[in-house]
Amino acid sequence: MTFAAATSVVSRGDGRYDAEIQSGWDIGGNANGGYLLCIALRAMRDASARPDVLTATAHYLAPGKPGPVSVLTDVVKAGRTITTVTGALEARDKRVLQTIAAFGDLAASGSAAPERVDAVPPDLPPPDECMTVRPAESFPPPFMGRIELRLHPEDAGFSRGAPSGEPRVRGWFRLREDEPVDTLALVLATDAFPPTAFNARLPVAWTPTVELTTHVRARPAPDWLRCAFTTRFVTGGFLEEDGEIWDATDRIVAQSRQLALVPRG
Amino acid sequence: MTFAAATSVVSRGDGRYDAEIQSGWDIGGNANGGYLLCIALRAMRDASARPDVLTATAHYLAPGKPGPVSVLTDVVKAGRTITTVTGALEARDKRVLQTIAAFGDLAASGSAAPERVDAVPPDLPPPDECMTVRPAESFPPPFMGRIELRLHPEDAGFSRGAPSGEPRVRGWFRLREDEPVDTLALVLATDAFPPTAFNARLPVAWTPTVELTTHVRARPAPDWLRCAFTTRFVTGGFLEEDGEIWDATDRIVAQSRQLALVPRG
Repeated sequence: MTFAAATSVVSRGDGRYDAEIQSGWDIGGNANGGYLLCIALRAMRDASARPDVLTATAHYLAPGKPGPVSVLTDVVKAGRTITTVTGALEARDKRVLQTIAAFGDLAASGSAAPERVDAVPPDLPPPDECMTVRPAESFPPPFMGRIELRLHPEDAGFSRGAPSGEPRVRGWFRLREDEPVDTLALVLATDAFPPTAFNARLPVAWTPTVELTTHVRARPAPDWLRCAFTTRFVTGGFLEEDGEIWDATDRIVAQSRQLALVPRG
Repeated sequence: MTFAAATSVVSRGDGRYDAEIQSGWDIGGNANGGYLLCIALRAMRDASARPDVLTATAHYLAPGKPGPVSVLTDVVKAGRTITTVTGALEARDKRVLQTIAAFGDLAASGSAAPERVDAVPPDLPPPDECMTVRPAESFPPPFMGRIELRLHPEDAGFSRGAPSGEPRVRGWFRLREDEPVDTLALVLATDAFPPTAFNARLPVAWTPTVELTTHVRARPAPDWLRCAFTTRFVTGGFLEEDGEIWDATDRIVAQSRQLALVPRG
């Protein structure tokens, strides 16, 4: 099943959409957070009548389990170039996530605006020289079978009990079977990699997301995407995880940051 | 008028609060975005019945002008340690901003959790050796009279037509007359400095905020706060501005990122 099919929505009118959390997109039984957000964003994007998500923030309220869900959308402003939409993803009577996003047209934007980039893409060996992440019965989780990840060898040691010691994960991302990555799928990519905490030698088994914000900066060119996730502050029971996604033309296409819980050891 | 008074709210029941955008907190007649968000967050914090904002995201929909406003709050989840609340700030019949935030208790959090910091506070000369920002008739704007900023001399040249060339602004922040900075006022600090674009030698007069997200990581110790704002990507008509706020005990107390428009030159 493609990403597009697994996040498909059906409008029921009045801003309500029906959808289904598909099985196999989970980590230990709970749907991946980026995947859940993409279901909501597909409905919100439809409600916005704009082609691209520009920025999306999700707050995660409850685990998402396979089965029917509804997305309740509300267009709070339809501006000249940006439309702002709120969304709530609900399973039965439980709210799974609450989100707000802005939509626009990245084909049209900024062609005459000044440009300046003070950064370079992450340095990665070619995909063939990186570690392929394949799902197993429990770990890596089933979700890893729905996407294609190749991890930088320096950042993949955690999987054999040898974390790098640096809270960083770099690698390549694409969808399976050459499904194109649109600006919606970029949001999936921002939450698709193993947690940086796995490499930090912290006594942490999981870092549940409180909040995830993604800025989509451009439509990606076809081909593998280069991704890097880093954490600088593990303090007070929380950590942030900063992500960057670059396309094959060396252009930044998305930035992300999430706030996650660090369960007490 | 203190920050607390200028952001005060009165509950009208059913999650609705009345407030007032005070004059003098503006930039060219429009209220500062952080100030507007703090009005909404004060109402939402009250609705949450928790002492600290943990993370807040605002989407800016229309300029805020002095006068009466309402904040419509909705508690979407009251969890064991985190309460998530949405808010809409409305002036007459126009929605000014839409926000979502999570609240908790930073005094109680994470005392047994692992800690790790891979960063250092920004290097700043003492406040007395930095440039005091004082409001003038048009520039610097009236808002600068409501807070106290001291800019790093290397980053203050834009004010005399000599931008540094680096999209960075560092400086000290505090409230006037020793008003304590609580976790709410930290959100004000994340949007209180001149735009990084002013130092980037870009043909840009202003960078209106689309979206601002702040993570509050700790309650700040009293005294000046050290702040640094940087931009790495000016692309496609947008830029991001990343902020860090450190307190006098060398602890990170807030991280922020905003997505702003780069009006075409």
